[in-house]
Amino acid sequence: MTAARYLEDFQAGESYCSRSVTLDADMIKAFASEFDPQPQHLDEQQAQHGFFGGLVASGWHTAALTIRLIVDSDLGIAGGMIGKELEDFQWYRPVRPGDTLHVEFEVLEVRRLLTRRRQGVLRLKIATLNQHGSPVLTLIANLVVPCRPEGANDSANESPA
Amino acid sequence: MTAARYLEDFQAGESYCSRSVTLDADMIKAFASEFDPQPQHLDEQQAQHGFFGGLVASGWHTAALTIRLIVDSDLGIAGGMIGKELEDFQWYRPVRPGDTLHVEFEVLEVRRLLTRRRQGVLRLKIATLNQHGSPVLTLIANLVVPCRPEGANDSANESPA
Repeated sequence: MTAARYLEDFQAGESYCSRSVTLDADMIKAFASEFDPQPQHLDEQQAQHGFFGGLVASGWHTAALTIRLIVDSDLGIAGGMIGKELEDFQWYRPVRPGDTLHVEFEVLEVRRLLTRRRQGVLRLKIATLNQHGSPVLTLIANLVVPCRPEGANDSANESPA
Repeated sequence: MTAARYLEDFQAGESYCSRSVTLDADMIKAFASEFDPQPQHLDEQQAQHGFFGGLVASGWHTAALTIRLIVDSDLGIAGGMIGKELEDFQWYRPVRPGDTLHVEFEVLEVRRLLTRRRQGVLRLKIATLNQHGSPVLTLIANLVVPCRPEGANDSANESPA
């Protein structure tokens, strides 16, 4: 994790790449049994006759892992990541046991809120990719980010003048 | 769960209400420690000085519980719920320990896909509400739903002619 960064510390065009994570059948089933208990996520035999022809992760598991990978990245928003809205959220292909995922994301826009002077919105374009570099999930996230408190030091990321 | 229902068995305007679930601090921390390990979801003391003034559930935990409540409902799509796209995904207010959530959802549109003759899309408007009836999360989900196989019996939901 880098030092806490305020709205002023981000710029459109910055891009990030997360670490990666490999899913196995036990992880897929553990998530699904709690949050998405359907045969395609729980039972190899039944899944084989279903839509995906085999066991696949819940799309919500992929989404939750995506957030974990972003939280663990260098984004480092002061006060943490606080989501407000998501757009263009799309699952492209299934995630199967043995697949390795990582997340690539980019700052699309940094916007100060006129109605809340001490907050702004960071618009992130997010893509979760598998080991073949193919997207499994893409979305745009709008995060609430605090402006730098008056009198606070500049970010450690900025060079001294 | 009702009998498996195909695309032809759904109609725009149908509405559903899920069972409810109450979150406690342990559930909030368990999800967060795996998928969203940030102080506002993990540590009461630190959370008190943060954006929400206390411990709150990860927005992704709320989303995962929303899906669990829908999976457990009477929607009963043949072959299970298969998500394709989400739109207008918005978190409105935090979910705190002791909050009780339920989901109200409605069929907005039933669309046959011209490119895939045996599948269609079910467009659902989804709202997750707390014990005060206030929305914590709303979204529109586009689900892939199979058409009834040729020669299959009509749904048990349809009255005989």
